[in-house]
Amino acid sequence: LSGLGRLLDASQVWVVLLCTGVAAGLIAAGIDIATNWLGDLKHGYCGGAFYLSRRFCCLGLEAGETCREWVPWRAAVGAARSGYVVEYFFYIVFSILFAATASVLVGTYAIYAKHSGIPEIKTVLGGFVIRRFMGAQTLIIKSLGLCLAVASGLWLGKEGPLVHVACCCANILMKPFPSLSKNEARKREVLSAASAAGISVAFGSPIGGVLFSLEQLSYYFPDKAMWQSFVSAMVAAVTLQFMNPFRTGKLVLYQVKYTRGWHDFEIIPFAVLGVIGGLYGAFFIRLNMRIAQYRKTTIIRKYPITEVTIVALITALINFPIIFMRPSPSALVADLFQECSKTTEDPLGLCVDKTAPPIILLLLSSVLGILLASATFGLQVPAGIILPSMAIGALYGRSMGMVLQAFQRTHPTSWIFSSCTPDVECVTPGVFAIIGAASALGGVTRMTVSIVVIMFELTGALTYVLPIMIAVMLSKWVGDAFGKRGIYESWIRFKQYPFLDNREDPVPDVAVSEVMTRTEDLIVITEQGNTLAALDALLATQPYKGFPVVTDTRDAVLVGYISRSELRFALDQARRGGGAGDDTECVFSSPAAVAGSPFPMTPRVRGDAGVVDLRAWMDATPITLAPGASLLLVAGLFQKLGLRYVLFARHGVLQGLLTKKDVFEVLNGEEEGEAAGSDSQTAELVGMIIIDGSCTE
Amino acid sequence: LSGLGRLLDASQVWVVLLCTGVAAGLIAAGIDIATNWLGDLKHGYCGGAFYLSRRFCCLGLEAGETCREWVPWRAAVGAARSGYVVEYFFYIVFSILFAATASVLVGTYAIYAKHSGIPEIKTVLGGFVIRRFMGAQTLIIKSLGLCLAVASGLWLGKEGPLVHVACCCANILMKPFPSLSKNEARKREVLSAASAAGISVAFGSPIGGVLFSLEQLSYYFPDKAMWQSFVSAMVAAVTLQFMNPFRTGKLVLYQVKYTRGWHDFEIIPFAVLGVIGGLYGAFFIRLNMRIAQYRKTTIIRKYPITEVTIVALITALINFPIIFMRPSPSALVADLFQECSKTTEDPLGLCVDKTAPPIILLLLSSVLGILLASATFGLQVPAGIILPSMAIGALYGRSMGMVLQAFQRTHPTSWIFSSCTPDVECVTPGVFAIIGAASALGGVTRMTVSIVVIMFELTGALTYVLPIMIAVMLSKWVGDAFGKRGIYESWIRFKQYPFLDNREDPVPDVAVSEVMTRTEDLIVITEQGNTLAALDALLATQPYKGFPVVTDTRDAVLVGYISRSELRFALDQARRGGGAGDDTECVFSSPAAVAGSPFPMTPRVRGDAGVVDLRAWMDATPITLAPGASLLLVAGLFQKLGLRYVLFARHGVLQGLLTKKDVFEVLNGEEEGEAAGSDSQTAELVGMIIIDGSCTE
Repeated sequence: LSGLGRLLDASQVWVVLLCTGVAAGLIAAGIDIATNWLGDLKHGYCGGAFYLSRRFCCLGLEAGETCREWVPWRAAVGAARSGYVVEYFFYIVFSILFAATASVLVGTYAIYAKHSGIPEIKTVLGGFVIRRFMGAQTLIIKSLGLCLAVASGLWLGKEGPLVHVACCCANILMKPFPSLSKNEARKREVLSAASAAGISVAFGSPIGGVLFSLEQLSYYFPDKAMWQSFVSAMVAAVTLQFMNPFRTGKLVLYQVKYTRGWHDFEIIPFAVLGVIGGLYGAFFIRLNMRIAQYRKTTIIRKYPITEVTIVALITALINFPIIFMRPSPSALVADLFQECSKTTEDPLGLCVDKTAPPIILLLLSSVLGILLASATFGLQVPAGIILPSMAIGALYGRSMGMVLQAFQRTHPTSWIFSSCTPDVECVTPGVFAIIGAASALGGVTRMTVSIVVIMFELTGALTYVLPIMIAVMLSKWVGDAFGKRGIYESWIRFKQYPFLDNREDPVPDVAVSEVMTRTEDLIVITEQGNTLAALDALLATQPYKGFPVVTDTRDAVLVGYISRSELRFALDQARRGGGAGDDTECVFSSPAAVAGSPFPMTPRVRGDAGVVDLRAWMDATPITLAPGASLLLVAGLFQKLGLRYVLFARHGVLQGLLTKKDVFEVLNGEEEGEAAGSDSQTAELVGMIIIDGSCTE
Repeated sequence: LSGLGRLLDASQVWVVLLCTGVAAGLIAAGIDIATNWLGDLKHGYCGGAFYLSRRFCCLGLEAGETCREWVPWRAAVGAARSGYVVEYFFYIVFSILFAATASVLVGTYAIYAKHSGIPEIKTVLGGFVIRRFMGAQTLIIKSLGLCLAVASGLWLGKEGPLVHVACCCANILMKPFPSLSKNEARKREVLSAASAAGISVAFGSPIGGVLFSLEQLSYYFPDKAMWQSFVSAMVAAVTLQFMNPFRTGKLVLYQVKYTRGWHDFEIIPFAVLGVIGGLYGAFFIRLNMRIAQYRKTTIIRKYPITEVTIVALITALINFPIIFMRPSPSALVADLFQECSKTTEDPLGLCVDKTAPPIILLLLSSVLGILLASATFGLQVPAGIILPSMAIGALYGRSMGMVLQAFQRTHPTSWIFSSCTPDVECVTPGVFAIIGAASALGGVTRMTVSIVVIMFELTGALTYVLPIMIAVMLSKWVGDAFGKRGIYESWIRFKQYPFLDNREDPVPDVAVSEVMTRTEDLIVITEQGNTLAALDALLATQPYKGFPVVTDTRDAVLVGYISRSELRFALDQARRGGGAGDDTECVFSSPAAVAGSPFPMTPRVRGDAGVVDLRAWMDATPITLAPGASLLLVAGLFQKLGLRYVLFARHGVLQGLLTKKDVFEVLNGEEEGEAAGSDSQTAELVGMIIIDGSCTE
């Protein structure tokens, strides 16, 4: 590339990243506004302008003034006496309506818009291609469906799906630049950066987004990718801040203002919260996977929309009467995080003196939340698990904080509380809610650093960084004791995506020769003696993605490797442009040609011999190891270099082949075959070879 | 490994990490206390107890009360009239004394304790071993020297050296566990985690430490390493907080309490600060390298202690009269970050109404700081560059903020300031200081995410995360335009450490065959026909780290690769235990042995033939590529798998060899040979091959 060419080439990435950031910010703002409006529709409508959410309808009122513009359904129907029933009814009807619409949209137009999308993105970044997973249709349906699903009151979050939305934006914006969209490695870098933008706008936490992308999603994360994620996440956050969908002018979503620090004795309950988070995570993952398995193996899988409707009905029935479940998870988390003081509002009644009823209700909500969320995550609607987990954690955290507070109030002179300042509230239940939320998130996703950063970007509670870290650490340790896989890895395994998890148990210490496909079981092409028709027949009968090329089948000295698509292309070219017929011989070497002579770049019949020279389409330098190499080394090659296959030769003679999928099967075949039978909706997976910036199929 | 064995094996890492965290926290606390005491000694001493710093000497006094215990030198000497001169004199004497002592200690006992150590740690984590670089002696001297060097008032910081200190702790603590200390890959993981602990205690920023380790130091950073760094950084932070060396009870070092947000118009000056940061970084790196080059090529290099003394003298002469340069960089940064209000102290006179003199003095201090820091970083004392850069950035940032504030005060009605609330201070110069510090740090180190996280862990100013991000982004872009290398990479290059920077310009697109060492130029061993004496002679005459083994020199079919140390060991064993003599033949293959037959694990004379079988010491499965492979691929292998050499074969016949050092030379040889002549103090570098958890020399 020339200097200018290289500059243009480099600037394309930045154009795409900047546009992705802006697009993600705009879409997130749109989703926020639409979700609020739809969510408020469950309770009433704006008299003056039906398209306004309650907040905007009542904008500009003084505190305490009632908002006359906003008409609750009770008033609209004119039912003064049975108001509660009317509101309950409308709440349920709208919930079901929204959820069912979302499900129908997803089912009809874009099945990939369902679920969170993070398991699939992990798989894509791990080196596989899922067709249509990040198309324009998926983007539109996921955005619309997300508004409806969140507004329906189902126990789901918009965070994971927003990552998918941001990746869709990036994927679409890359289309005009072939140097990006045709190069799988660069494409993946851009997608990594886009996912950072997704979390950035979901939580208003740009740094948390970068870390999420790094810790949870990315398979290998070069330095460059970190910088690109940083820029993309920042642009997205600036755009969101500029759009200012909540009219608060702040990026810090759940800003808390704690006037008090923490005391040494609180470390113990904080640690207990961490352990509970780990237990919750392990339990949640098992329950969720059990439900998913049940869904897949019974008749339920044939009626996904009905299933969504029923879950929405049950959720609405439970949500409405319980004060802690009626608000959206986002509003709930914000309220639970707050410190009690005389100036802040207390819509949920958390700051009352008689604390026993709220404590019991908090715990009940937490348990019901677990059950509902585990039934919801996996339905045919766009659904994330991050915010529900935070809400569940905040519920049990706050309840523990309130118990401790009550205990301290009744025993203020106990030696345990000697470090409390007299006449000042000692225990802050809001801090326990934050730490509970972090621990629950840690238990479910098994992330560490990202959670801490997200928590303090969300709340600004920097003083509590150490307690949060301790809770997250314990939560991960306890969770890992019950199984190494987080919720996303569990879904990857459930869906049987070919993903090599580098967090899995160690690779068995065997030589590759024990697991590779041996030459005698391989379909190989000889370098000479094949007619065009024979190669056509080979492609027609063999499903493999590529073929080793050897000198002859007896000696099998390795010459190179040709992928299915390259061979297909070359043969078609030879027929169309090169004047070759069925009987023309195709060769991968030429006795006349010396090594290093230029290969013809169009396959055409050559010279008197009448042969087609296919050398230009063959990879003459595939990565080759000795068959005695350890599987550990080979797994490292697959993971770190993104290879899809490795050839094995001894003294130049081909011994066998190992594909990424083989490694995947060896690693997963050792466990009990719980996930037997492939998911009918598993994407068509096409492998690619990626080496840092260059891509060869 | 059995289940229990594996558990013990895994727990060793955690024991080492926890102990490293605790040790780093304790040492950092000790250094903080000692530095404060020594620094205060320059001004006076504590009458009651000479070993107390001013802060502890005057502890418990009310604000405004004068501290009678503390005796300034002016009073001690009894010079009432020429007090300034006396204080100036004592200041200079102590500065020189401390600096010279530090330099003597370093020069006499541990030369590796000089400088920041980060370039060396990067090199070590990049796959090389520097002997004695992280020994007990280095640890002690670096800690002591650091106290003295910081207290001397030289323009240096303790942050980089603390990373080195933490790595020394980890290295020493690993010694009792051979499964860690003998395994280079696991050792490196632990060192990564330890460096996170170093930054964690330097800034009280555990998350920033993890990111610093990830972004700046680590070559490849598996998921596991992130989690280990997290734990180690957290333990270190908890220990430091528990030790509480500043008696503030807070981990947030420079906590700021801003009552005001930022306004849209401020984005432009923030961006300008980012650009200035980039320019400063580029200029500083060039100046510092120019000075280093001058030092190395002139007579100065023979008198390092004299050089330190002179720089300390000049620094003291300049520092004392200028109010912004007299305090330690740490105290200076803390003051510059503060918002002006009636309740906070203003020791530096930054909140006066007539702002012109301080603005000019701030700029002057900034320029002098650049000059002094660039002369200091590279002296024979422990010295970091992070804090001086932050101080320089805070100086120019604050001055810009004060200019803007003055402008706003004189033109409050201008349309630019329409978003300011009337009667409330609009511009906060402290914010500009923070952003200036972030931009300067970005320009010098070229880090991104870590800086943002460190800045807000340092200050708690979460509201300003977007401006900080924008400034850091611009600073990196501008800095990169003048040269891709940050200060640490520049030093690595200057010292000619064999470090493959994955941020460097793209690898030239050539085939390996053009750069590899061809078989005819290689020293190879044939699989049969060598006597023990011949191999001894080979080792004695050839300096190479390993030798390919081939069938015979004519055909050169590759059999394997044996490293120098393995061969040495095997030959010694054969002589001592195996009964072999000079004339005994050594073979790497056996006609009788079929592939896969067990190799003898002690080299002893075998059978009637009287040969020593060395197969067990040979790597029979070295990574082999075709010579047509691109250099890009091979560089990727070196970088991502930590390989040290790759062999090239065609049809099994050895074609050549490429070592990491060759790649390094190809990549760096293309540039102008500015760093000619190797540094006489370059460490002895020994290469290792690392594959994710396993190590084969």
